[in-house]
Amino acid sequence: MDSLTYVNQNKQRFLDELFGWLLIPSVSADPKFNEDVFEAAEYVKKKFEEAGAENCELIPTDGFPVVYAEKIVDPSKPTILMYGHYDVQPADPYELWETPPFEPVVRNENIYARGSCDDKGQVYMHVKAFEYMMKNDALPCNVKFIIEGEEEIGSKHLDDFLRKHKDKLKADVVLVSDTSMIANDCPSVTIGLRGLSYMEVEVVAANRDLHSGTYGGAVANPIQVLARMISSMKDENNHITIPGFYDDVVEYSKEQRDEMAKRPFNLDAYKKELGIEDVEGEAGYSSLERATIRPTLECNGMWGGYIGAGAKTVLPSKANAKISLRLVANQSSAKMSVLFQKHFEKIAPKSVKVKVSVLSGGEGVITPMNSTAYEAASMAMEKTFGKKPIPSMEGGSIPVVAAFEKILGLKTALMGFGLDTDALHSPNEHFGLFNYYKGIETIPYFFQYFTELSKK
Amino acid sequence: MDSLTYVNQNKQRFLDELFGWLLIPSVSADPKFNEDVFEAAEYVKKKFEEAGAENCELIPTDGFPVVYAEKIVDPSKPTILMYGHYDVQPADPYELWETPPFEPVVRNENIYARGSCDDKGQVYMHVKAFEYMMKNDALPCNVKFIIEGEEEIGSKHLDDFLRKHKDKLKADVVLVSDTSMIANDCPSVTIGLRGLSYMEVEVVAANRDLHSGTYGGAVANPIQVLARMISSMKDENNHITIPGFYDDVVEYSKEQRDEMAKRPFNLDAYKKELGIEDVEGEAGYSSLERATIRPTLECNGMWGGYIGAGAKTVLPSKANAKISLRLVANQSSAKMSVLFQKHFEKIAPKSVKVKVSVLSGGEGVITPMNSTAYEAASMAMEKTFGKKPIPSMEGGSIPVVAAFEKILGLKTALMGFGLDTDALHSPNEHFGLFNYYKGIETIPYFFQYFTELSKK
Repeated sequence: MDSLTYVNQNKQRFLDELFGWLLIPSVSADPKFNEDVFEAAEYVKKKFEEAGAENCELIPTDGFPVVYAEKIVDPSKPTILMYGHYDVQPADPYELWETPPFEPVVRNENIYARGSCDDKGQVYMHVKAFEYMMKNDALPCNVKFIIEGEEEIGSKHLDDFLRKHKDKLKADVVLVSDTSMIANDCPSVTIGLRGLSYMEVEVVAANRDLHSGTYGGAVANPIQVLARMISSMKDENNHITIPGFYDDVVEYSKEQRDEMAKRPFNLDAYKKELGIEDVEGEAGYSSLERATIRPTLECNGMWGGYIGAGAKTVLPSKANAKISLRLVANQSSAKMSVLFQKHFEKIAPKSVKVKVSVLSGGEGVITPMNSTAYEAASMAMEKTFGKKPIPSMEGGSIPVVAAFEKILGLKTALMGFGLDTDALHSPNEHFGLFNYYKGIETIPYFFQYFTELSKK
Repeated sequence: MDSLTYVNQNKQRFLDELFGWLLIPSVSADPKFNEDVFEAAEYVKKKFEEAGAENCELIPTDGFPVVYAEKIVDPSKPTILMYGHYDVQPADPYELWETPPFEPVVRNENIYARGSCDDKGQVYMHVKAFEYMMKNDALPCNVKFIIEGEEEIGSKHLDDFLRKHKDKLKADVVLVSDTSMIANDCPSVTIGLRGLSYMEVEVVAANRDLHSGTYGGAVANPIQVLARMISSMKDENNHITIPGFYDDVVEYSKEQRDEMAKRPFNLDAYKKELGIEDVEGEAGYSSLERATIRPTLECNGMWGGYIGAGAKTVLPSKANAKISLRLVANQSSAKMSVLFQKHFEKIAPKSVKVKVSVLSGGEGVITPMNSTAYEAASMAMEKTFGKKPIPSMEGGSIPVVAAFEKILGLKTALMGFGLDTDALHSPNEHFGLFNYYKGIETIPYFFQYFTELSKK
């Protein structure tokens, strides 16, 4: 039985099992969900066992555990190390969800829930593809699974984990489904990801909130100071003004940029889908380039003063922001965090005190098109989609991909089945039923082609 | 018995009664406290009755009611119209209060509670001063009290109220204790207040929160757009850049400024008390001038994106801010709100949509030193403090003072007993026991001197 037939025979069960996982609010960023994060780890561990995996366990780290599972069919055969994560982004703001984030439903052929695509839905495709291969005697090589619980908070303990379990994790390639395709009728394999430095900053003026009538105009307003500092970090061309920020950026040649520009992209449709009149970004680059091969500085959150209903005439004591840098090759996350921190401290006026905390970081990554990893993914998608996938740069970050290369010496195949429009990290995150089932159908072919290509 | 003796005989009871009022969280800005606001009105109405006032009632408005009480001793005698408010500012952020805002306590000779000074504590001085005059046959003139419940939200319905009850409110002067003195050993009478325009703004970029990896750099970030817009509204000299903003500002002469500069002010002590290294404000003006005779634009709150714990890589859909203008004579609040709104809409880039809502406003005011109102207040304070009070400009706003002049044709005596350091509108608001009792002692002298001066 081929994988398509197996999927078609088991559609409802595959959905029900995923729903059971999506019900668990495994938000790693927020301590109040700690128990749920552990429960989500247990859930998927059990599902690996049921699918026929061996040596399933929760391997502890200094944070949330890594779920491990494996099936060694023959030590002389290649080994695929599949990576994913069972933690999810916070669901705030809850009020913008049409249905509650942790009560999965199918609507318009999409599964709506936090984590439906990123990354529980995409991980669960692998669990079910593995089940197919086990039940149909179609597993052509060895497989090891590591599903972590801290991807959304910067995979803080994964480097340690990889170093500590280097032997156990011995493999020939890493397979990850945590990226997107260009469109359902335009499959793609990801060849590049941006790196990330994520900071939280605090600006403190007076030692207490003040009455804005009594003190307004005479004492620094930390919200306005922070607004000024953030604004000053991009110039009128939206170039980032942090000294040294662009020093290590790899500039693409005209030929490379022309090649990338062949990727289907319609600016009007892009604007319409986002509901915006105009885009905004670094002068001299296209929207696609701005979101993939160019670094950026984004304020992910800002708060200060009175944010309740009505008017409160307060001159607040402090203001905070979460600011992240998306980095491109060869910018080092650690180095850029330091540059940011130094610059932020330097531009602070004497009227305030500032504090910068680095919350997380990760390196960008490039997977060459001539690697076995890329080739196997490309062939698998061509087989099930009926057309050759396009190589695609992505703007997001999967910090561990660089670590796989550095620590384990492995290339990563980035074969994702989601779409950019799936509202990852946003209210109403969803994952197409088409994509979910197509993923389960495609993954076994990756196993087959990777095994075949490895023999050559 | 003089008022000092009466105060000394009733200290504990005066405190207990005020505590009973402070227990009621009458936050007018937040609908969840609606019932408490009404309860606070009932409480003080009952206390006026107990003190001997007549015709006590809650007069309805389209918002919260005005508490009315009066004592007419002789229609041929002067009438003092006392004004105050029973609503309080929101107590957020609660976690910064050393003791809960609505559980009053005495600590270091201060009463700690939201509203302890602004304005319940100062209003209650009048209730008890009235009680003294009634019990000791010392009320020399007629008195009418109006205590409103919407001062902290811009006294939205008070103009209507004044117009509708113009006859009922016929008087010779308005007496208000909702301002501060320079120091306990440096009494002062307020001669000027700033006006206010309070706006809430919203900047919307994409129609949903986006993944900052996928879209960061390519789509406008509303937090950064708002930060840029707010920053652009002050230039490098902290002059406000809204066209026409300064057109109506009354510039003070060198002589006037020199006179004001005689007010005791120690910049080092000011900085130390606020815990700041440096002040910040409009170039060319002193800290005192910046906070009194110069207008300012202050961001009272700002929020957007993810503000929870940890890192969320979101490119938010929208950002909001509360922005207020403090205005000086002769800036019209309504005109400045319109100028702000037009300017804000004009400077918005095409990549976002903006919305401006005017939440409240009020005109600035000047009480001349040669008025009977000022003179009576000055004499009363000199009597009880043992030194002549200094005339003082204040940076805060009491929007209704302009309305008393415009609608009722009355001058206002601004005789407040709080201090700038009482943390009004801030966590740990407090009111000195000295100030509370001194107010009760002083007010009957205002009644006496105003009546005497009116005879001349």
